[in-house]
Amino acid sequence: MPVNLVAPDPASLLPVPGVRLGIASAGIKKAGRRDLTLIELAPGSRVAGVFTQNRFCAAPVTVCREHLTRGDVRALVINTGNANAGTGDEGLDRARRTCSAVADLFAVDATQVLPFSTGVILEPLPIDKILPALPAAHADLAAGHWSEAAAAIMTTDIVAKGASRQLQIDGRTITVTGIAKGSGMIHPNMATMLGFVATDAAIAPALMQRMVRDVADVSFNCVTVDGDTSTNDSFILIATGQAGNAEIADAGTDYSALKAALADVAIELAQAMARDGEGATKFMTIAVEGGRDRAECKQIAYAIARSPLVKTAFFASDPNLGRILAAIGYAGVQDLDVNALKVWLGDVLVAEAGGRAAGYSEAAAAAVMKAAEITVRVSLARGDARATVWTCDFSYDYVKINAEYRT
Amino acid sequence: MPVNLVAPDPASLLPVPGVRLGIASAGIKKAGRRDLTLIELAPGSRVAGVFTQNRFCAAPVTVCREHLTRGDVRALVINTGNANAGTGDEGLDRARRTCSAVADLFAVDATQVLPFSTGVILEPLPIDKILPALPAAHADLAAGHWSEAAAAIMTTDIVAKGASRQLQIDGRTITVTGIAKGSGMIHPNMATMLGFVATDAAIAPALMQRMVRDVADVSFNCVTVDGDTSTNDSFILIATGQAGNAEIADAGTDYSALKAALADVAIELAQAMARDGEGATKFMTIAVEGGRDRAECKQIAYAIARSPLVKTAFFASDPNLGRILAAIGYAGVQDLDVNALKVWLGDVLVAEAGGRAAGYSEAAAAAVMKAAEITVRVSLARGDARATVWTCDFSYDYVKINAEYRT
Repeated sequence: MPVNLVAPDPASLLPVPGVRLGIASAGIKKAGRRDLTLIELAPGSRVAGVFTQNRFCAAPVTVCREHLTRGDVRALVINTGNANAGTGDEGLDRARRTCSAVADLFAVDATQVLPFSTGVILEPLPIDKILPALPAAHADLAAGHWSEAAAAIMTTDIVAKGASRQLQIDGRTITVTGIAKGSGMIHPNMATMLGFVATDAAIAPALMQRMVRDVADVSFNCVTVDGDTSTNDSFILIATGQAGNAEIADAGTDYSALKAALADVAIELAQAMARDGEGATKFMTIAVEGGRDRAECKQIAYAIARSPLVKTAFFASDPNLGRILAAIGYAGVQDLDVNALKVWLGDVLVAEAGGRAAGYSEAAAAAVMKAAEITVRVSLARGDARATVWTCDFSYDYVKINAEYRT
Repeated sequence: MPVNLVAPDPASLLPVPGVRLGIASAGIKKAGRRDLTLIELAPGSRVAGVFTQNRFCAAPVTVCREHLTRGDVRALVINTGNANAGTGDEGLDRARRTCSAVADLFAVDATQVLPFSTGVILEPLPIDKILPALPAAHADLAAGHWSEAAAAIMTTDIVAKGASRQLQIDGRTITVTGIAKGSGMIHPNMATMLGFVATDAAIAPALMQRMVRDVADVSFNCVTVDGDTSTNDSFILIATGQAGNAEIADAGTDYSALKAALADVAIELAQAMARDGEGATKFMTIAVEGGRDRAECKQIAYAIARSPLVKTAFFASDPNLGRILAAIGYAGVQDLDVNALKVWLGDVLVAEAGGRAAGYSEAAAAAVMKAAEITVRVSLARGDARATVWTCDFSYDYVKINAEYRT
């Protein structure tokens, strides 16, 4: 079951002026399931995205990248149940035909529509089911449908994921609302995850790509469930500019304030994916500090977070320090001085000087491990850089879910 | 249960002239368990080794490296039940004291003894139990004790691992016999594995390090169970020179013939570790061909072999092609043309042109997946290089074994 995670109260997901969402049931994988979402953006909205690094990127990712280069995006269309990945030229054609059908509904050009798909791969996208359902999704468009959209984009997720924040910029109230899906195959660069974060702030188009990367780097790119990365991962940032603030034109104070709010929402969504990780019983935060640069801190944090041995030990509430130290040792940081580093489980210092800490108490470490939320902190003692990664444990249910996914 | 693996018939493990083995019970972790092994080498034997790349290397690995630089190794001492890793200076001292005690028995110098330990880490090596048991191991020395030694070095292994070959060089019969242990935390460079392969061939000292690397590269460095690497991994090659062949002095025909026999034994041992992988129900061979170089072939083979999603699908006998393609896509080969590659499950072509193969039949693929031994073959179609990796599937029992290891 998800670790300390409940679906957001619908009232807590604040409308973002300039954004409306509509949901319908196309019956892609299961009759009656609300599996098709449209997001309408007001004219003048700015959109930027980051996508999977997988060489097998899905057809909708290819089409998204193309359409984003043209700008002036006015609609997003998201289906679950089928990823339209590994589907060749026919898959590209079906993604484009979906965009055209959406464009007709909004009286815009097909290149102003971004398509997203998630679900089984290698199966043809059933546009015979999707296209006829688009008018119902269009008729459902409303500014208050964020929580319905959060539920509609789920696949193996148990809990819908959404978050909102507000802040003041230039005397105006700025709203940030985001939704995401993802619970397995979660790893940076990126994961089977879709994330959509929208704000009504006005921000210069030239800053949008930088902002989406800045935000992804501290949120969606810091979460892993099983280390696998997917063909369809996408994180989209939308700025409608309806708040009336003076357009943010450089990376100054207003940029930083907006970035902090966007990151806050994105981090909550990213952590929710680890809390809802397939079979998760524990939520783990791996915080590495004192590194020479952020890259080596991330490298070590991910080695710990991805280790099946560490993850099964956490499932068993076993303070198996040896597995953590071994993962640090094989992370690939070549000149690491293992005698200088320290490791804490929660607030308990467990390792120093290349072995167990002097005052180590198995009982104290075991007490930390019993909690549903556990922080592993590693100090490398050779610099000022730091990085944090979130993950979950590895349980019987992970195997069960993934052994039975297609059946 | 191990996949098509039984312990070797003791008679099939041929004595290697110049090598004797003795086993005793030190009661390190469990009273009565035969957990201590001595290997005696005749004067003039040549020894070379490759060791873990883990920054947290264990005390015995540090001592082995030191002693190997001095040459003239005359004895090996191996204990299970305790890895003497993460034990700091005290651990180094205990490893050296063990060497001294062994050296006294053989009337050699402590630097002529190589120590090996495997088992739990971060616990002090119980030399109070080990040292008193050494005389019994010494009294047990016999040329025919290979299978007893194979059993004595096991930890989580279910089945003892050993193999022999014979060949002719220079008109003489050359024998090669090896034993190994390892079933989890198995990954190249290297794994919780100990491997000892001995031959009576005469080979120049200058060629020994090259030979041990050549052999490891096609055997122990091609196997993975869970991707974790350990603090104690060691592979040792011994050449006693007792066969009477003219010393192999260059990398010519005789070198190649000996290398082939050594590799044959080492590959059988490495495959046995995957067959005996923790919780294994399937033995998987991942063969990647048509690469530009061996490195990129290995990179892709390991991405498939390490993927928890691929491994759970194999456990479920599910021909989940999508997970294999996704793993190929995220392996990190940046300019890979996914439309050019082909994938076979057994003899069944399942993927080409970026998606499912034209004549793909789920029934045919499912039939392949039902077998206990499955080969995934990937053709990259951009060169002549190839690499093969062996692994096993990921089952409920993997989680069970690793969640309960310390309890």
